[in-house]
Amino acid sequence: MTRLTFDISMSLDGYIAGPNPTLEEPLGEGGELLHEWGLATATWRETHGRPGGERNIDDEVMAEVFARSGATIMGRRMFSGGEGPWEDDPNADAWWGDEPPFRHPVFVLTHHAREPVAKEGGTTFTFVTDGIESAAEQARAAAGDKDVGIGGGASVAQQYLRAGLLDEVQLHVVPLLLGGGARLLDNLGGAKLDLEQVRVIEAPGVAHLTYRRPS
Amino acid sequence: MTRLTFDISMSLDGYIAGPNPTLEEPLGEGGELLHEWGLATATWRETHGRPGGERNIDDEVMAEVFARSGATIMGRRMFSGGEGPWEDDPNADAWWGDEPPFRHPVFVLTHHAREPVAKEGGTTFTFVTDGIESAAEQARAAAGDKDVGIGGGASVAQQYLRAGLLDEVQLHVVPLLLGGGARLLDNLGGAKLDLEQVRVIEAPGVAHLTYRRPS
Repeated sequence: MTRLTFDISMSLDGYIAGPNPTLEEPLGEGGELLHEWGLATATWRETHGRPGGERNIDDEVMAEVFARSGATIMGRRMFSGGEGPWEDDPNADAWWGDEPPFRHPVFVLTHHAREPVAKEGGTTFTFVTDGIESAAEQARAAAGDKDVGIGGGASVAQQYLRAGLLDEVQLHVVPLLLGGGARLLDNLGGAKLDLEQVRVIEAPGVAHLTYRRPS
Repeated sequence: MTRLTFDISMSLDGYIAGPNPTLEEPLGEGGELLHEWGLATATWRETHGRPGGERNIDDEVMAEVFARSGATIMGRRMFSGGEGPWEDDPNADAWWGDEPPFRHPVFVLTHHAREPVAKEGGTTFTFVTDGIESAAEQARAAAGDKDVGIGGGASVAQQYLRAGLLDEVQLHVVPLLLGGGARLLDNLGGAKLDLEQVRVIEAPGVAHLTYRRPS
């Protein structure tokens, strides 16, 4: 069964991006530190066309995420590389380069209708203007028997959480305090989490916590 | 070496107590659910004079905390059972009953000087009016070769975090969203966490995460 999943690195104080994001530092101050464990893995490097990297427990976690993802949903800001005036740049898809790492269909939530964009390596960007449920439906259809991953950012994940549509959340908790930025589990309007803890993995400097909707 | 430690159950969205605490519900709405894993353990029940309880991985974690604690520091509100007008009740120590579960010296941070109170079973309450560092010093001296535990609440833990005085933090992360209340890792004034992840334990419905200052 295709699951709607969200997989993200989070600071101990709950932020998935630090304060004051810029074009040069789209994850905000300190935000990149959340991803050190992932960027060091062989799987991440391979999917981004780079050699080397670690083959460790983190790599297994990362490989699992890539292997099971058949489609991705992301917000407009994530598509175009962050917040700011460049957000409405018609060439904003340049952010992801000629060969984006997804290698599957990506659905971008936006208010601006736009023709789909096909990139090298199997990534297509389709722009969805009629809401998160429509995006979920389209992504499920595109994912086949694989899962759909919510790419981010925080506000997109929050919309899906509020709507009760997420089947699984995996948090990679890093012992940092960012003290500001985008907090994942905020603005949930009193939503309850209908998810059970199904797996906890200890890795050096990061805890991989998985929560899933009871089936 | 005596460590200054903080050990607390926390919701996935970072709260250690829910919204709207009352005398009947001092942990706020939903707050008690954070402690279900702990209250079910044989060790917790034993220290609170009750028979039965689980002997499982949670019990081992709980037993470890009790065994290593030689003194406790807590805030005035925790001493008197919560926020509210009863806070200045001179009989507020009635909250903890005749035989409190600590069974060691407890130091209460307060602005109101007051004579120490000795209870049955080894618990003494000493009132500290000259700040968190003084309380830490007195508690360290009282703990001998055991550790000092910060009992809470959130604002007391935050004061010690801001001052960089905590040697170890253990979080018991429960997959609940409380959506409001007392958030542990807030109001830290840009403090960095000089703590490394040293242990991650998977238990049914709770993840026990331990962070320690590098020695």
